[in-house]
Amino acid sequence: MSHNLLKGKRGIIFGALDERSIAWKVAQVAHAEGASFTLTNAPIALRMGTINKLAEECEAEVIPADATSIEDLENLFTKSMEVLGGKIDFVLHSIGMSPNVRKGRDYGDLNYDWLMKTLDVSAISFHKVMQTAEKLDAMNEWGSIMGLSYIAAQRSFPDYSDMAQAKAMLESIARSYGERFGRMKNVRVNTISQSPTMTTAGTGVGGFDVFFDYADKMSPLGNASAEDCANYCVMFFSDFTRMVTMQNLMHDGGFSSSGITDRLIEDLTK
Amino acid sequence: MSHNLLKGKRGIIFGALDERSIAWKVAQVAHAEGASFTLTNAPIALRMGTINKLAEECEAEVIPADATSIEDLENLFTKSMEVLGGKIDFVLHSIGMSPNVRKGRDYGDLNYDWLMKTLDVSAISFHKVMQTAEKLDAMNEWGSIMGLSYIAAQRSFPDYSDMAQAKAMLESIARSYGERFGRMKNVRVNTISQSPTMTTAGTGVGGFDVFFDYADKMSPLGNASAEDCANYCVMFFSDFTRMVTMQNLMHDGGFSSSGITDRLIEDLTK
Amino acid sequence: MSHNLLKGKRGIIFGALDERSIAWKVAQVAHAEGASFTLTNAPIALRMGTINKLAEECEAEVIPADATSIEDLENLFTKSMEVLGGKIDFVLHSIGMSPNVRKGRDYGDLNYDWLMKTLDVSAISFHKVMQTAEKLDAMNEWGSIMGLSYIAAQRSFPDYSDMAQAKAMLESIARSYGERFGRMKNVRVNTISQSPTMTTAGTGVGGFDVFFDYADKMSPLGNASAEDCANYCVMFFSDFTRMVTMQNLMHDGGFSSSGITDRLIEDLTK
Amino acid sequence: MSHNLLKGKRGIIFGALDERSIAWKVAQVAHAEGASFTLTNAPIALRMGTINKLAEECEAEVIPADATSIEDLENLFTKSMEVLGGKIDFVLHSIGMSPNVRKGRDYGDLNYDWLMKTLDVSAISFHKVMQTAEKLDAMNEWGSIMGLSYIAAQRSFPDYSDMAQAKAMLESIARSYGERFGRMKNVRVNTISQSPTMTTAGTGVGGFDVFFDYADKMSPLGNASAEDCANYCVMFFSDFTRMVTMQNLMHDGGFSSSGITDRLIEDLTK
Repeated sequence: MSHNLLKGKRGIIFGALDERSIAWKVAQVAHAEGASFTLTNAPIALRMGTINKLAEECEAEVIPADATSIEDLENLFTKSMEVLGGKIDFVLHSIGMSPNVRKGRDYGDLNYDWLMKTLDVSAISFHKVMQTAEKLDAMNEWGSIMGLSYIAAQRSFPDYSDMAQAKAMLESIARSYGERFGRMKNVRVNTISQSPTMTTAGTGVGGFDVFFDYADKMSPLGNASAEDCANYCVMFFSDFTRMVTMQNLMHDGGFSSSGITDRLIEDLTK
Repeated sequence: MSHNLLKGKRGIIFGALDERSIAWKVAQVAHAEGASFTLTNAPIALRMGTINKLAEECEAEVIPADATSIEDLENLFTKSMEVLGGKIDFVLHSIGMSPNVRKGRDYGDLNYDWLMKTLDVSAISFHKVMQTAEKLDAMNEWGSIMGLSYIAAQRSFPDYSDMAQAKAMLESIARSYGERFGRMKNVRVNTISQSPTMTTAGTGVGGFDVFFDYADKMSPLGNASAEDCANYCVMFFSDFTRMVTMQNLMHDGGFSSSGITDRLIEDLTK
Repeated sequence: MSHNLLKGKRGIIFGALDERSIAWKVAQVAHAEGASFTLTNAPIALRMGTINKLAEECEAEVIPADATSIEDLENLFTKSMEVLGGKIDFVLHSIGMSPNVRKGRDYGDLNYDWLMKTLDVSAISFHKVMQTAEKLDAMNEWGSIMGLSYIAAQRSFPDYSDMAQAKAMLESIARSYGERFGRMKNVRVNTISQSPTMTTAGTGVGGFDVFFDYADKMSPLGNASAEDCANYCVMFFSDFTRMVTMQNLMHDGGFSSSGITDRLIEDLTK
Repeated sequence: MSHNLLKGKRGIIFGALDERSIAWKVAQVAHAEGASFTLTNAPIALRMGTINKLAEECEAEVIPADATSIEDLENLFTKSMEVLGGKIDFVLHSIGMSPNVRKGRDYGDLNYDWLMKTLDVSAISFHKVMQTAEKLDAMNEWGSIMGLSYIAAQRSFPDYSDMAQAKAMLESIARSYGERFGRMKNVRVNTISQSPTMTTAGTGVGGFDVFFDYADKMSPLGNASAEDCANYCVMFFSDFTRMVTMQNLMHDGGFSSSGITDRLIEDLTK
C-alpha cells in the first residue's frame, strides 16, 4: 500500500546494481511512494547489472555516471533536472568499493594507491555529489541527502579493512556538508548505518556468513534487511524528518546498543 | 494530507498538557495518520490542562494515570485495550518533572528526596510503563515505544540540574528494556532527543530564552519545533522504522553535531 | 618502583572490600606513589572485609561511612582533613550494589524500592560525596574525583539489570558535577569504564564467567585487570591529567571499539 | 621534577616544528621523564623550524622523513633502532596539513587533488607509520602509538574544512590498526583530541581567535595548553596506561561534554 510519502518529489539514486542492492529496494519503495527519480551507476556496473529492469519498473531514466568524475556528476544533475522537470529533493548515495578488500590485501600490507581509490569511490564521491549539486544549485529547499554507512566506522571489523576508513570519512562528510547545506538551503544530510546485508557487495567481504550470523544474534530484532533499510531511507526523504541532519542513523535491529545477548551466550556455551 | 501511516494502529499517549505540549502535537498527527489511542496524564495535570479539547478533536478517551503508580498503569493499559479493541501498537512517554528545578534548588544543594521524585516521575516511570505492558501482555508484536529526551543526557547544561540524570537514565532504560522487549516481542524502544522547545514545561527552566536562541544559532536548520518532533515521532510508530531500536534519535536541526557556526560567531564578535 | 606521582597528595578511597577489589589495588598503588589517604566503606562491608590489613599496609586510617548518608559523609570529609592535615586532592568512588541483581529479580519484574536502593548506593552517593565536599570546601584546587563505571551504561547486558541505569546515572553525574566543580575549583570529575573484573562484586553477576571470556576475546589486549585499573586511576589523580574532565574513560583492552575479532570468530565457528 | 615515567623507553616523535608545537613539548616532557628518542619531520619543515635546538636539549638525533613516503619511514625506523639501541616503545604522530585550508578554498569548492594531499599527510601517514613499523618488526611488546586529533572529527567546524575528514580518518585508523597491533604485539594505538591550541599550525586556521575564546569559555577548566597535552601524552607512553587502546581521548578542559556554560551565557547576554 502506498502512503504517497514522496508524492511530487524528485530524486537521484546511486548504486542500484541488482535485485539484492539496497539502492534497488530504495528505488522500488520510492516509486511506490510517489517519487520520480533517475537511476545512476558507473558505466561498468551498468553493464554488469540488470538496472534496466528496475528502470522500467520505476519508470525511471538511467544516466550513467562515475561518481568520482565531476564531469559525469554535472551531466547527471543537469540531465536529471531536465528529465524530472525541476530541482532535486532527494539523493541516495549507496556506493562503496575497496580494491584492497577485493584483492585480499592484508590490512598490514595495504596498497596505498588502492586505498586512495577506496576513499575516492566510497567517500569522496559523496562530497563530489554535494559540491556539484551546490554549484549547479540543483537541490530544492528542505531536500534530503543520504549516504549508506556501516558500524565499522566506529568499531574494528578486521575483514572490513580500509572500508572502515572510508565509512568514517563518509560520515564525517555528512556532518561537514550537512552544516553547510543546512545553513544555505535547509538541505539535510545524514547517513544510515545498516546491518550487514546479503547484497552482492556485502557478501564479497571475507567471513561474511559467520559475521552475519553473529550480528543477527547480537541484535535483539535480528539483522535489518535491505527492504527494511529502504523503508527507513524513504522516511528520511519524506517531510516527516525535516529537522534531522548531520546524523548517523543506526538501522541495525539494536546491534549497536547491544553488549551481549542470550542468543550469543547460548552459542558460546555450546 | 494524511498518509495513513498509522492506520489500524492503537496507542497510548502520555503527557499532553496543553496545546504547546509535544505530546499534544503527537496526538494530532497520530490522529491524522489514522491511529486510535487513549490519552493519559496525572490527575493533577488533567485538572490544570485542557486535554478534553484534544480528546474531542482526536476522538480519544482520557484515562487518568499517575505514571509512577503501577496500579494506575495497570488500569490504563487494561482500559486502553478495552476501549481500543485490542493490544497496543505504540506508546509515547513524554513526562518530565524535577522539584529541584521547579523550586530553584542549586545543583550543589540538591534535595535528595526531590531527586528521587525527579527520577521516579521522569525516568523510572518509563520502566514501569513497559514492565506493566509486558506483564499484561499488552503490546502487539512489532509495536513501538518512544520516550522524549534531551541532549543534557550527554552534555552539561547547568540550569537543567538533576533532569540531566533523569534523561540519562531514561535513555539507559530504553536500551535495557529495548533489548528485552525486542527479544520477546519484536517491540522496539527508542528515545527522541529533541531541541529545546517552547512548551510549558520547557520554558520553566531558568535562562530558557538565551539558551533557546543559542541552540537555534548552533543548529544549521534551527531548532526543531514541537510539530516537527510530532512528525518524527509518528514516523517511529509507523512500519517504516521497524528495525530501529535501543537508539537515542537526535531531532535537533543538527545541534548535536555542530561545533561552531557562523551565526554564533557573528554574535560573539559583535 | 615508585614514581612519586602522588607525592604530597591527600585522598579518600571508597569501596575497598577485600584483596580483589579495584579500590584495594588503587590504595596500594596510591600508597606506593606517595599519597596519604583515608579508607572508607559502609560499616557492614567493613565487618565482612579485611580492610584493616590494607589500612596497615598503607598507613591509612579507616573511617566508616555509609555513602548514602550525608551525616556520615560530612564526618568522613571532616575527619579525613584532620587526619591527613589538609584539604583533599583525590577521591575514588568505587561503590555499586543492586538488590535486584543480588536477589535475582528479573528485569521485567523489578522491585522499585530496590531500584531506588540501587540508584542511591551506586550513583546518587557519587553526587552526595561531591555535594558534601563542596559544602565543606574540602577539595583542593586541581583535585581529581573518579568514579568506576561499566560499559553497560552504553550497551545492554541483560544480567546487569538495573545496574545499567545506575552506571548511566553515575556517568551523567560526573558530567554535571564536573562542570560545576571545574568552574568553581578546577576540580576534575571523571569515570573509568573498566573491563569485567574478577572482584567479589563482579563475580556476583549471573553468567559472569561466560561473559568474562567473551569480553576477553573481544578485546585485542584482553580484559584489563584490577591492577591495570589501579594504575590508570592513579594516573588521573596525578598532575599529568589536569585538564581531563567530564569524561568516561574506557579501560578495557579495546573492547568498546571492537566490532568482532578473530578470536571470537574461532569460537563461533568451532 | 622527573618521575622517571619513561625510563629506559625508546621513541620516535613526529611533528616538532618550533617551540609552540605540541610535539616539541612532548619531546621535552619525554626527555625529562627519562626516555630516549629520535625527532623527525619533513625535510621542508626541518628547514623552516628550529628543531636542532630541541634536539640538543633532548640529546636526540634528528632524522628527516616525509611521513607519506614508505622509503623515508623505513629509513627512519631502521636508523632510530640503530641510534637508540633497540626496538621502539612509543611513537607520537603529530602531523596535519591541508592545502585547501592553507589556500583558503571554500568547503563547497574543494580542490580534490589537495584533499588527497590533506588525507595523505594528515591521516594515511599514520597508517604508513604503523605498517612500516610492523613490517620491520620495530615495535616492542606493550608499546604505545599516539596520534593527535581534534573534535572536528565529531562535530562541524566550518573553518576546519577537509581537516575534519582527515581527523575522522585518523581516529578510524587508530581503531583499525589498534585492533591489529594489539592482537599481534600488545601495542596500543590511541588518539588525543586536544583543545584548540596556540601552535603555529593551529593559529593558521581562519577565525582562530574567536573560536579559541569560545572553546575556552565552553570548557569548565578552560582550554588545555600544549604543555598539558604533552603531560597527558607522556602518560599514555608510560606503563600506567597499558590496557587503553583504540580510544579517542578527549583532552579539552571538558569542552566535549559541555552543552552551555555560564561564561558563554554572559557573553551572549551582553
